[in-house]
Amino acid sequence: MGKKKFVKAITSRDEDFAQWYTDVCRKAELMDYSEAKGFIIYRPYGYALWENMKNYLDNSFKKTGHENVYMPLVIPESLFLKEAEHVEGFAPETAIVTVGGNEELQERLIIRPTSEVLFCNHYAKVIESHRDLPKKYNQWCSVVRWEKTTRPFLRGSEFLWQEGHTAHATEEEARKEALDMLDIYEDLGKNLLAIPFVTGVKTEKEKFAGAVDTYTIEALMHDNKALQSGTTHYLGTGFAKAFDINFQDKDGSLKSVYQTSWGVSTRLIGAVIMVHGDDSGLVLPPYLAPIQVDIIPIMQHVDGVLDKANELKKSLEALNIRVRLDDTDKSPGWKFSESEMRGTPLRIEVGPRDLENNQAVIVKRYNREKITFKLSDITESIPSLLKDIHEAMYDRALKNIEENTREATDYETFKKIMNENAGYVKMMWCGDEACETKIKEDTKATSRCMPFDQTPIGEECPVCKKKAKHLVYYAKAY
Amino acid sequence: MGKKKFVKAITSRDEDFAQWYTDVCRKAELMDYSEAKGFIIYRPYGYALWENMKNYLDNSFKKTGHENVYMPLVIPESLFLKEAEHVEGFAPETAIVTVGGNEELQERLIIRPTSEVLFCNHYAKVIESHRDLPKKYNQWCSVVRWEKTTRPFLRGSEFLWQEGHTAHATEEEARKEALDMLDIYEDLGKNLLAIPFVTGVKTEKEKFAGAVDTYTIEALMHDNKALQSGTTHYLGTGFAKAFDINFQDKDGSLKSVYQTSWGVSTRLIGAVIMVHGDDSGLVLPPYLAPIQVDIIPIMQHVDGVLDKANELKKSLEALNIRVRLDDTDKSPGWKFSESEMRGTPLRIEVGPRDLENNQAVIVKRYNREKITFKLSDITESIPSLLKDIHEAMYDRALKNIEENTREATDYETFKKIMNENAGYVKMMWCGDEACETKIKEDTKATSRCMPFDQTPIGEECPVCKKKAKHLVYYAKAY
Repeated sequence: MGKKKFVKAITSRDEDFAQWYTDVCRKAELMDYSEAKGFIIYRPYGYALWENMKNYLDNSFKKTGHENVYMPLVIPESLFLKEAEHVEGFAPETAIVTVGGNEELQERLIIRPTSEVLFCNHYAKVIESHRDLPKKYNQWCSVVRWEKTTRPFLRGSEFLWQEGHTAHATEEEARKEALDMLDIYEDLGKNLLAIPFVTGVKTEKEKFAGAVDTYTIEALMHDNKALQSGTTHYLGTGFAKAFDINFQDKDGSLKSVYQTSWGVSTRLIGAVIMVHGDDSGLVLPPYLAPIQVDIIPIMQHVDGVLDKANELKKSLEALNIRVRLDDTDKSPGWKFSESEMRGTPLRIEVGPRDLENNQAVIVKRYNREKITFKLSDITESIPSLLKDIHEAMYDRALKNIEENTREATDYETFKKIMNENAGYVKMMWCGDEACETKIKEDTKATSRCMPFDQTPIGEECPVCKKKAKHLVYYAKAY
Repeated sequence: MGKKKFVKAITSRDEDFAQWYTDVCRKAELMDYSEAKGFIIYRPYGYALWENMKNYLDNSFKKTGHENVYMPLVIPESLFLKEAEHVEGFAPETAIVTVGGNEELQERLIIRPTSEVLFCNHYAKVIESHRDLPKKYNQWCSVVRWEKTTRPFLRGSEFLWQEGHTAHATEEEARKEALDMLDIYEDLGKNLLAIPFVTGVKTEKEKFAGAVDTYTIEALMHDNKALQSGTTHYLGTGFAKAFDINFQDKDGSLKSVYQTSWGVSTRLIGAVIMVHGDDSGLVLPPYLAPIQVDIIPIMQHVDGVLDKANELKKSLEALNIRVRLDDTDKSPGWKFSESEMRGTPLRIEVGPRDLENNQAVIVKRYNREKITFKLSDITESIPSLLKDIHEAMYDRALKNIEENTREATDYETFKKIMNENAGYVKMMWCGDEACETKIKEDTKATSRCMPFDQTPIGEECPVCKKKAKHLVYYAKAY
């Protein structure tokens, strides 16, 4: 019993990636569906992933002078309608409260799909002088966007996120903020999620409703689809003008503030699953993992086995390593499968024969490598093993991007590559939305971003043959 | 300029307590009103208070084996209607989503006023065996309860809170959980908020809709009104039966789980304001305070003053003390007022004359005591000063309860004391709701709790003269 039964329930990743993904979400107990369509339950293990991301980011935000606030859940409809582009982008997907305290409301309340208008309305009240700037606020909350097709963590009617909203005295400072926050997101990928991102600027068609420029971090999933994993926006003065957010500058003149907003969400959990996971389940990068080491005793009824397992546990805990000892009455094979399904980076097996030989077996989850260690060496080896695993997982993901990024200088090649299910294809672009639309119709691929390194790979847009203005990363995307 | 102007805007506490409270909330920049009535904005300083409470509690919850989850924002109406008592309690104050994605919804969605039904529905799915128990889940979120009259932090249409929901195999274990969580709330009061609570059991009339027993922590405000500051509930098997939460016990029989729920909210911010605050504004207990020490330089343009202030700041930060140096161009008097308004526990004043004398003045916010310290002694003195202040604030609040708790053995005395605006009055009670109702009609006081120490102070209920069953704390309450 044990192992086989547990693993059997999971679809193979290469057979049906979408089903594999859903299986992992369910079997690793990350989430469950609720009775309200599109609204999911974040189970303890799934929520713990979000908490670890949240703690990491919150610390980065605070170190860079940001303050947390909490804005209301609802936006009166009249306030919501103030910034035209923004409304156009979000109105179709809002949920609306029309009844409160058994009475029909006089004004409908929009559940926040994002909180730009709430922050703007507040900033208009509290900003008067250049001395009040910059304002660098962030909030952790859930937002609601009505979605027809939903997938756990990737697209849902409700998701958890952080949204930063800042106001500055100069365009330069605001633009820097939008890029600085992109750096913080990249750092999160690099140092916590073991996910390398392709970064750049969104095209006009793909940018945020109301932004001047949208910057993005794009991750590449195992099925070669891209996942937009976070965005930062330079908003210019559009919102400031709609909401009258003015300040008296040092020279006495009244000016509009320059704004940014930026956010990442529980979608990052989806990225972690689809970048690192395999046919046995989740594979977690060590610093993100809620449990970093599973200790699994073999023949735990034999004298000394559980004692040694507990001793190991304590010595690892003393190093602040997150460790679990599975001393339940399940079989070791079953425990191995569970540990694999939950993606614990390291598993330590210790049984009577190991004790005799004064050793234990350590198995790395991400590549299944088995190493035999002297018992006395284990504890001090774990921190560097975790570090190595983190780096190897990052490198593997980076290599995957490199191997699945190609260039196209003519449109036939582009279409051929896209139909072969390539990852990213780099191609020059004229800047016309028509070409993006045609590409999407022909191949389902969309422009992911214009990378910061704009070294040209041709002179014309292969779609329309007009002069090329930008280098673009295209991919099919979630 | 400076000091006077800033302070002038605040109503005296004894003149108009309600106005004083609102003034402090606004002037200390804890909150602002939003465009949606009853929904407030938690500004950085107010949110920082909540974050500190949250971190403290979250740590306590995790240490005692609780796990965080996140349940959906909305509850389908049919699910909400499953537990009769619960519905009766909450239905009148719900906000309801009726439109999503531009379409009228087929089923209305209730915005959670509390999440019992969501947890219960989930528990019914994931609990099968005694091996799955206990389940000890908590979530941090906001809830919505439609309120006609609202006051910042005390009563609002939306508030932030934590709600714990647990399921156990035995009544004994569940009852213990409800009491253990009450201990954790008391500990929060004692060690972070410097607020002593009167604790006990709620009467049938005052208990939570759907609970068997409700336990409460009650704080006494400066105006002698009580504030229910948190509750824990033993739910018995009522929800388990309504939601079919069954488990197979060790003996093979199918049983209902025993449940608890418990929560504290941003109302605790209101408690801190009204227990400790004074006519100069907020007075924060040191371990809760986002800023523990304000360093205010005097004549900061004089050589050496800012250097010394910065040096002090660094040495305090090295001890993990949260310190701010106010080197803006405001006057020292203005800075003092701001520091007082924001309730910073300690203020260090350092100017040229202090430097000459190799000293600085430290002022304690809670009692305005001024102490002169040798510069070389300051840093190492601060931790114990903070500790002393914390204890003194707790003791002062405790003394206030003791001085404002009286006993009544006849009803005329009770009414007289209540009309004199007493705090708590202890009186025996027959157990009939009619007497509670009469007391409320006659005096506006309500039963706050039946304390755990039930040493009787009489044999009959002074209201109806029937045999007394319980000792009760009565008070006017928020």
